[in-house]
Amino acid sequence: MLERYGHGGDLWTAEETFGRPKEQFLDFSSNMNPLGPPAIVADIFREHWRDIVKYPDPAVRELRHKLAHRYKVPVESILVGNGAAELIDLTVRVLKPGVTALARPSFSEYEEAVVKTGGRIHEVPLHERHSYVLQADDAENACQASDLLFLGHPNNPTGRLIPKPLLDHLAKSSRQLVIDEAFMDFVPHEEQVSMLQRAASSRNVFVIRSMTKFYAIPGIRLGFMVAHPDWIKRIKALQVQWSVNDIAQRIGCGVLDDEGFEQESRRWLETEKSWLIGELAGLGLDVVPSEVNFVLFAFPASMGITVKQAQLYMGRQGILIRDASLFAGLNERYVRVAVRLREDNERLIRGLADMLQQLGASASDEGHAGGGL
Amino acid sequence: MLERYGHGGDLWTAEETFGRPKEQFLDFSSNMNPLGPPAIVADIFREHWRDIVKYPDPAVRELRHKLAHRYKVPVESILVGNGAAELIDLTVRVLKPGVTALARPSFSEYEEAVVKTGGRIHEVPLHERHSYVLQADDAENACQASDLLFLGHPNNPTGRLIPKPLLDHLAKSSRQLVIDEAFMDFVPHEEQVSMLQRAASSRNVFVIRSMTKFYAIPGIRLGFMVAHPDWIKRIKALQVQWSVNDIAQRIGCGVLDDEGFEQESRRWLETEKSWLIGELAGLGLDVVPSEVNFVLFAFPASMGITVKQAQLYMGRQGILIRDASLFAGLNERYVRVAVRLREDNERLIRGLADMLQQLGASASDEGHAGGGL
Repeated sequence: MLERYGHGGDLWTAEETFGRPKEQFLDFSSNMNPLGPPAIVADIFREHWRDIVKYPDPAVRELRHKLAHRYKVPVESILVGNGAAELIDLTVRVLKPGVTALARPSFSEYEEAVVKTGGRIHEVPLHERHSYVLQADDAENACQASDLLFLGHPNNPTGRLIPKPLLDHLAKSSRQLVIDEAFMDFVPHEEQVSMLQRAASSRNVFVIRSMTKFYAIPGIRLGFMVAHPDWIKRIKALQVQWSVNDIAQRIGCGVLDDEGFEQESRRWLETEKSWLIGELAGLGLDVVPSEVNFVLFAFPASMGITVKQAQLYMGRQGILIRDASLFAGLNERYVRVAVRLREDNERLIRGLADMLQQLGASASDEGHAGGGL
Repeated sequence: MLERYGHGGDLWTAEETFGRPKEQFLDFSSNMNPLGPPAIVADIFREHWRDIVKYPDPAVRELRHKLAHRYKVPVESILVGNGAAELIDLTVRVLKPGVTALARPSFSEYEEAVVKTGGRIHEVPLHERHSYVLQADDAENACQASDLLFLGHPNNPTGRLIPKPLLDHLAKSSRQLVIDEAFMDFVPHEEQVSMLQRAASSRNVFVIRSMTKFYAIPGIRLGFMVAHPDWIKRIKALQVQWSVNDIAQRIGCGVLDDEGFEQESRRWLETEKSWLIGELAGLGLDVVPSEVNFVLFAFPASMGITVKQAQLYMGRQGILIRDASLFAGLNERYVRVAVRLREDNERLIRGLADMLQQLGASASDEGHAGGGL
């Protein structure tokens, strides 16, 4: 499988699996903004690469001030990390929850972090019949049964936001609430749904953000979190010295100023997501509504196609899709794909159409043959 | 103090303290090879910056293979880290020693890692009368009293190697032995004194290496460690996903091929270290012999000068030196300086000479005045 190390976007494993150079894959398995990185990133690499002869600022002062200004939270409430992955790990290590409530399906790093600290998991079901939107009664049960509620908002791989009134309620009723807003930049009117400011002023709410998806810079690693200053101090105390490299700090500062990139990205996504969802539905696939830059869909049972077959078929054509059956709570018919530029999305749709014809045909042959035995 | 975040090389704090732009300091407080980075680093930044739109290889395959070839150890014995700092932290977290023996003085990150896991410290004294070389009886006591012996080889801030027969003995007699070889590349005939191969074949020896000092790339973060494959698996399990950024992985691969840089660096160091030590001794300072690219020295008690006074005086001239009194085991007369290029080293010597004249004079005035009361 392509998710040998737990995630999409592993072009090295794709190269090993399909014998094609990794540059030649069209990757729908990781969720990057195809308009990125912003132009300033090239400038920073050109003008500042020589600064790597010095240590990075251990306190990430400039970027933290920029983030504080941008998101209107105190600078003491901000910790920058070596990717959101580091902040997920650190937060769980500091909070040391006995029982952590996790939505099924959700991003696997939450569970990894909990398992590392020896904690137990309470499963919060997300239901197909509710299009995977978190329900109040399931959330309420989770609050009762857990020390920590760890939720994606929007959630990966479902692409759904948590209803704001429910989230506000959970901020009050849960002992501790960690919100992963890795894909929040893609949400229109994010300031109305983000919990960043709430996290800065509460003692039990923590928000983690990634900067690598929206700005398409996963290779350099960058994320940040917002929490009460007392918690930030304790989490920082566990962080490894110079964890955030110098180039990442500079890029973080640079991209925050690029309002044009932000607007252009929102416009692209609005148009392109609708188009892609329409086309996927047109192929007869069961598509989950999405509030972000990726789409979860399933092959209807009647098609008799599994995601593993699909990943193999598409991979051989040089197209990588994410096996979403690896997310606990989804079955072998689920796929996740990123929204890309029109030309790429068209290739995806054509590839899927071909596959449905070929695999669908052989599946019904088999069904037929099986029936005849 | 300039070591507000625990280390030298913090130009942000220097700027805040002395009101001079951080680019204008001559930094002797962090120990980078002044010949670096090698030319290939510029090429990698120019040609590969756009690869940061993809995730880094989560398994760091190419660099691990290069390191395995270079150091003749199995690839399964190698883990690459986000700087050696990450590997120090991870190793201590996995080994969870009750009591860790640490040399006094030594690099403060060892103690930080131990404190984070709730472990206790057994102090192993390094004596001025032995020029800070680890002694067999002190090491033997440490083996008896500890679960883990954590040693710098060469040691920071003393610049001394551990005698090889003693080290071989400790590899057998200690329960667990972690060797930090962060500065080993600077040692002539490193292959005769490094414990890398021993670590790959033992179950109780771990070697941590930095790649940022010799190649002068601390801003991008890169280190690796060698241990038995079973330990590497357990340590990797605690490491955060994609911890080593893509540019660092590529730079690691690139610099290993540059033999010319290696030879040139060794030649520079041989000449320049002798010169600098000679000049420091000529100023009447007590210089500890060094096997690496930095030098520890002390103001003789008769001079009546403290390192804090010296750091302030020199900082005002735009020259940063390391307050070595912050290393447990050294008193307020100790300074550590990096070896740099001749012109810079001359500026350091001139600055120190001026200071000795000014501060020395006022110190003896005070002494005189005090005596007259």
